[in-house]
Amino acid sequence: MDLERSPLARPFPDVSAIAGVTPRIARAGYKDWGRCDLTFVELAEGTAVAGVFTRNVCCSSEVELGREQVKLGRARALVVNAGNANAFTGYRGREAVEAIMAQVAQALGCEPSDVFVSSTGVIGVPLPQDKARAGVAAALEAPECSWEEAAATIGTTDTFPKGAVATAVVGGKTVTLAGIVKGSGMIAPDMATLLGYVFTDAAVDAAFLQRCLAAANESTFSCITVDSDTSTSDTVLAFATGKAGNAPLAGFDDTGADAFAAALHDVCRQLALLVVRDGEGAQKLIEVRVTGAVSDDSARKIGLAVANSPLVKTAIAGEDANWGRVVMAVGKAGEPADRDKLSIGFGGTWAAREGLPLADYDEAPVAAHLKGREIQLEVDLGLGDGRATVWTCDLTHGYIAINADYRS
Amino acid sequence: MDLERSPLARPFPDVSAIAGVTPRIARAGYKDWGRCDLTFVELAEGTAVAGVFTRNVCCSSEVELGREQVKLGRARALVVNAGNANAFTGYRGREAVEAIMAQVAQALGCEPSDVFVSSTGVIGVPLPQDKARAGVAAALEAPECSWEEAAATIGTTDTFPKGAVATAVVGGKTVTLAGIVKGSGMIAPDMATLLGYVFTDAAVDAAFLQRCLAAANESTFSCITVDSDTSTSDTVLAFATGKAGNAPLAGFDDTGADAFAAALHDVCRQLALLVVRDGEGAQKLIEVRVTGAVSDDSARKIGLAVANSPLVKTAIAGEDANWGRVVMAVGKAGEPADRDKLSIGFGGTWAAREGLPLADYDEAPVAAHLKGREIQLEVDLGLGDGRATVWTCDLTHGYIAINADYRS
Repeated sequence: MDLERSPLARPFPDVSAIAGVTPRIARAGYKDWGRCDLTFVELAEGTAVAGVFTRNVCCSSEVELGREQVKLGRARALVVNAGNANAFTGYRGREAVEAIMAQVAQALGCEPSDVFVSSTGVIGVPLPQDKARAGVAAALEAPECSWEEAAATIGTTDTFPKGAVATAVVGGKTVTLAGIVKGSGMIAPDMATLLGYVFTDAAVDAAFLQRCLAAANESTFSCITVDSDTSTSDTVLAFATGKAGNAPLAGFDDTGADAFAAALHDVCRQLALLVVRDGEGAQKLIEVRVTGAVSDDSARKIGLAVANSPLVKTAIAGEDANWGRVVMAVGKAGEPADRDKLSIGFGGTWAAREGLPLADYDEAPVAAHLKGREIQLEVDLGLGDGRATVWTCDLTHGYIAINADYRS
Repeated sequence: MDLERSPLARPFPDVSAIAGVTPRIARAGYKDWGRCDLTFVELAEGTAVAGVFTRNVCCSSEVELGREQVKLGRARALVVNAGNANAFTGYRGREAVEAIMAQVAQALGCEPSDVFVSSTGVIGVPLPQDKARAGVAAALEAPECSWEEAAATIGTTDTFPKGAVATAVVGGKTVTLAGIVKGSGMIAPDMATLLGYVFTDAAVDAAFLQRCLAAANESTFSCITVDSDTSTSDTVLAFATGKAGNAPLAGFDDTGADAFAAALHDVCRQLALLVVRDGEGAQKLIEVRVTGAVSDDSARKIGLAVANSPLVKTAIAGEDANWGRVVMAVGKAGEPADRDKLSIGFGGTWAAREGLPLADYDEAPVAAHLKGREIQLEVDLGLGDGRATVWTCDLTHGYIAINADYRS
């Protein structure tokens, strides 16, 4: 199936080289795609790693292994297979991952546990070891590629390559963070999400990198949803090569640590929003801002109930300010809410305040707002100070077309 | 919008008169529909009532009042307004309901609390009192109508009228139970569901009727889902006129109580399945059978995670035996599951057993099964004796067309 580029796509940013990080791509031929499908990123010795992973109980071997590897805190390489998720493939799937780890470790002279593997695509077909072996061999010999090429190669139903970049000054040194991400469907926030990778030349202690990544994830990747379906392979990894020469960051008391954490959060937020912009069938980006909840956590759950509601998402697709459906979604979240204190707005215009439709409600500015590509939906609970922002996309015929037809 | 009759529709059953129950219909004109939109059912003195209601926090005044009325256990009339849900309409909505209750109570010479009101349709517009008053007045004068006419009148986006009937022998007397139901979208199982009414001439104590209805609801209305969205107005009421002349049922030790409870369960199950058959855009009825879970409750949650997964529902729409998506949905349910013990099947044919795709898997019978209108999806967890069956429909372009366009 040929997918049209999302109308919400953004141009790929200008990403400079990150010292200590060398991306390469090759063609393993996992599917009949006329393009590369294996991404190999070599990392300098001494690179620290952190990761967050899917909480889906039926996760892939890649995720099981990655969770253990991250505890060691070291990385020398990343391999991403596109076109086959290698999930629900039993011992054969695990053997395929271990074979890739061994092959790369031998080539680089490192431990197999220093080699991180991700796979994305169809579930239930073991990754063919012969194709993987030939693909890895080709990648080891391939010239360095651009970040945009790497971002395109990790994609599956993605319609545009997704990258983000940020810088921070740490102890007088400028460090760069660059990230790539793939994801379009099977996106739900009960976990890390999809496949995302952030690379930086900053020197960061692995434990502190993990702490910063987990915090950033909470309000970025964990606050997006496309279809409430939670992938078996979701992974976000952050790699820090230390080549920028700053004094290593080990805690928030260190000079520049706040700036680094902010830059990491910035990259994660950019990447998360790009995934929603490429949500399957998406025509509109929807930002749900929840205020006045009893807690931030409650606000996030309410925001996700709204963002996951098929009736809210189809109303936005139809450019219909159907705030009644928003009320319904708030009510089903199971969180504290009082119908008679609830207010709903679109793009800064209240449609209902404190449990009642506004008597002088002027739908014209709301109708104009809903015709745009980027929709804001405001929900005020009127109960407390809890707030959260979550992002999703509308639900359109495109989602049905893509998913009633993907595997065949 | 003109909706085509669901391909899964069933003919309306042959429902005989229920002694003590007189349905009538009228046109209140809540919308520009060229048909009746107000259903009035008069109930004989001494009628017992039971009810289950939505757990949506933002429920309508009808639901708030109904919950209190059911505690009194008596009913003399039911009024159902179609085209306006009267939800999220504040004090004006409540006043409109109380006006209807007062008007009917005066006409019948009963207490306002004996008059049950339901409303279904658009959220956020107070029910116009003048239209309701004229509609109720017309209904009080109208001739008795058929059950099929009553079932058609309570509908909104429904594409066919839905009814069910069963009989039971109670202490030598044959009692009849007849039910009608409406519902097509905003159907999720965290509560009673939609609007459903069961009428019987059996003599049943209100408390026992409530117990039977709650039990039946658990494995019928609470086990269906169309779109995971939970209505603000869901209500199921059961009315027992006592005109069959059996010795009143007050507990399971009474003669015929088991037969009555079974017949009530039968009617509720028929009605619940009819709602799924009229799920918005439905082309296929999907039965998800979960076995081997750690408990029945866990099995139900896993079944609903599968039944609510947009990716599973679109796969079935595309007649694609994509069991990988079923694995994903099982894994995201948050219930105990072991990837390596999990089996997935379609229509009696296993596609994967104990964590592995079947080596000799023959997709031909599965492909043939998926071309049908009624799909069985089997999930075996391999962990315990917990089991549950839930029902849903596929997710198609029809759902998008109906919901991106309904209010306008």
